[in-house]
Amino acid sequence: MRKLISEVPLKVRFNEVDALRIVWHGHYVNYFEDGRQDFGRKFGLGYMDFFNEGYTVPIVEVLVQHKHPLTFGEEAIVKTTFVNTQAAKILFNYEIVHKDTSALICKGSTIQVFTKKDTMELELYPPDFFLEWKKKHGIS
Amino acid sequence: MRKLISEVPLKVRFNEVDALRIVWHGHYVNYFEDGRQDFGRKFGLGYMDFFNEGYTVPIVEVLVQHKHPLTFGEEAIVKTTFVNTQAAKILFNYEIVHKDTSALICKGSTIQVFTKKDTMELELYPPDFFLEWKKKHGIS
Amino acid sequence: MRKLISEVPLKVRFNEVDALRIVWHGHYVNYFEDGRQDFGRKFGLGYMDFFNEGYTVPIVEVLVQHKHPLTFGEEAIVKTTFVNTQAAKILFNYEIVHKDTSALICKGSTIQVFTKKDTMELELYPPDFFLEWKKKHGIS
Amino acid sequence: MRKLISEVPLKVRFNEVDALRIVWHGHYVNYFEDGRQDFGRKFGLGYMDFFNEGYTVPIVEVLVQHKHPLTFGEEAIVKTTFVNTQAAKILFNYEIVHKDTSALICKGSTIQVFTKKDTMELELYPPDFFLEWKKKHGIS
Repeated sequence: MRKLISEVPLKVRFNEVDALRIVWHGHYVNYFEDGRQDFGRKFGLGYMDFFNEGYTVPIVEVLVQHKHPLTFGEEAIVKTTFVNTQAAKILFNYEIVHKDTSALICKGSTIQVFTKKDTMELELYPPDFFLEWKKKHGIS
Repeated sequence: MRKLISEVPLKVRFNEVDALRIVWHGHYVNYFEDGRQDFGRKFGLGYMDFFNEGYTVPIVEVLVQHKHPLTFGEEAIVKTTFVNTQAAKILFNYEIVHKDTSALICKGSTIQVFTKKDTMELELYPPDFFLEWKKKHGIS
Repeated sequence: MRKLISEVPLKVRFNEVDALRIVWHGHYVNYFEDGRQDFGRKFGLGYMDFFNEGYTVPIVEVLVQHKHPLTFGEEAIVKTTFVNTQAAKILFNYEIVHKDTSALICKGSTIQVFTKKDTMELELYPPDFFLEWKKKHGIS
Repeated sequence: MRKLISEVPLKVRFNEVDALRIVWHGHYVNYFEDGRQDFGRKFGLGYMDFFNEGYTVPIVEVLVQHKHPLTFGEEAIVKTTFVNTQAAKILFNYEIVHKDTSALICKGSTIQVFTKKDTMELELYPPDFFLEWKKKHGIS
């Protein structure tokens, strides 16, 4: 089975740094979204791809574990990995590593579900287009 | 003519403070929105009031002038004043003052226009419901 | 053992709502911070209390589980509960419930550690002032 | 006199879009900061350059004028132009244009002042290093 990973660079904004001069922990949820958005663009699994198939894919769980702080001006890489499941869910793992030292800054995961875009009703089975997307990418 | 003003308290969040331990300037646009939202609730001119009349009222200009910094844990008051105009615009002035010292922290203004919610088309004349709202509040 | 809980009201800001017209998931980390900050004020365990004792208490883990969406204009309550541990950690659980219906919107938890404010060095044992704080509040 | 301009690409994040599915106006202050940060890197006038010379350069005024909305997935370019003044101030103009159509999305300006980093005292005259920076870049 292929492992689908996207990597996208991250530059710390001045206003993401808090009074301790490290990135405020809440911004990492943004960075995960940057990673997920980049994954979507690269592998055709973006927000609009779901939307055009009639679905929205709300986040139902986020876990963030902070290992090392980032400071203003530092650069990092957000690695987003697709995690396969038979459930009607979309799982991603994230690792943020320092651009220069490769030190692990942060890791985490998200869980998304499928809801019909018109009714917001939860889907209990993975939609066909998603199964086909997995097949196309050698994931089963 | 009556002067319509709302006052809403503001507590500085930890994550609104930057590396210099003062509120990052960009957050004041949020504080203005808090003020405008409070004004809307108090005087029946909120986002949903416009929406229910068929309009959205996008911001087309924001001016923010910073006079004194705020630090974590400080409290302030956002004063939002309706500014009358004959144009098809909604003008607000803002003053943020320190809760304890009344020192002027920040002042500014916003300009909003009327667009039809379905077509996003710009309205060239103030809608009737808005003229009635002004009349009701003794503004002419 | 007493259970220490703070409750603080939450009003959804217009700009916290995303294209689906529900609060974007990342903002819940803010809401947890609002809860934690309120807890700190009420029980004397705020950011500055730690700082004045020579410590910062960075977040090392956040878990957020989304149960129901919130939309613009809705109000909720953030309930923050102190969770005791013998480890040199500070644990909080969070529940965000709808103000009118009491429906569970979101639950989650955070883990903080103690670092010396000057060296950023990790503390392996709970500092004395923290043990005293727990004793004072009947937690053991 | 040379005109110093930096251009940096901008991708709209999902969570920057509001209930109307356009970028919430407050995020443009972030985009301006992205532009200013990019300018600083390119021309050696970044936050840390000031800091290392003993200064911080707080924003005292921001003006943002919105011309056209941006939606999720759209890309734009932030153009940041240095505006010369004899006063002890740093002025930038900003233009955000659509990547594909070059349509003007937003324009604006910021004013920064010089404060000594230790005392936060305002400088009434432009510091020497800043005059030298201008000279080096053919600005007088």
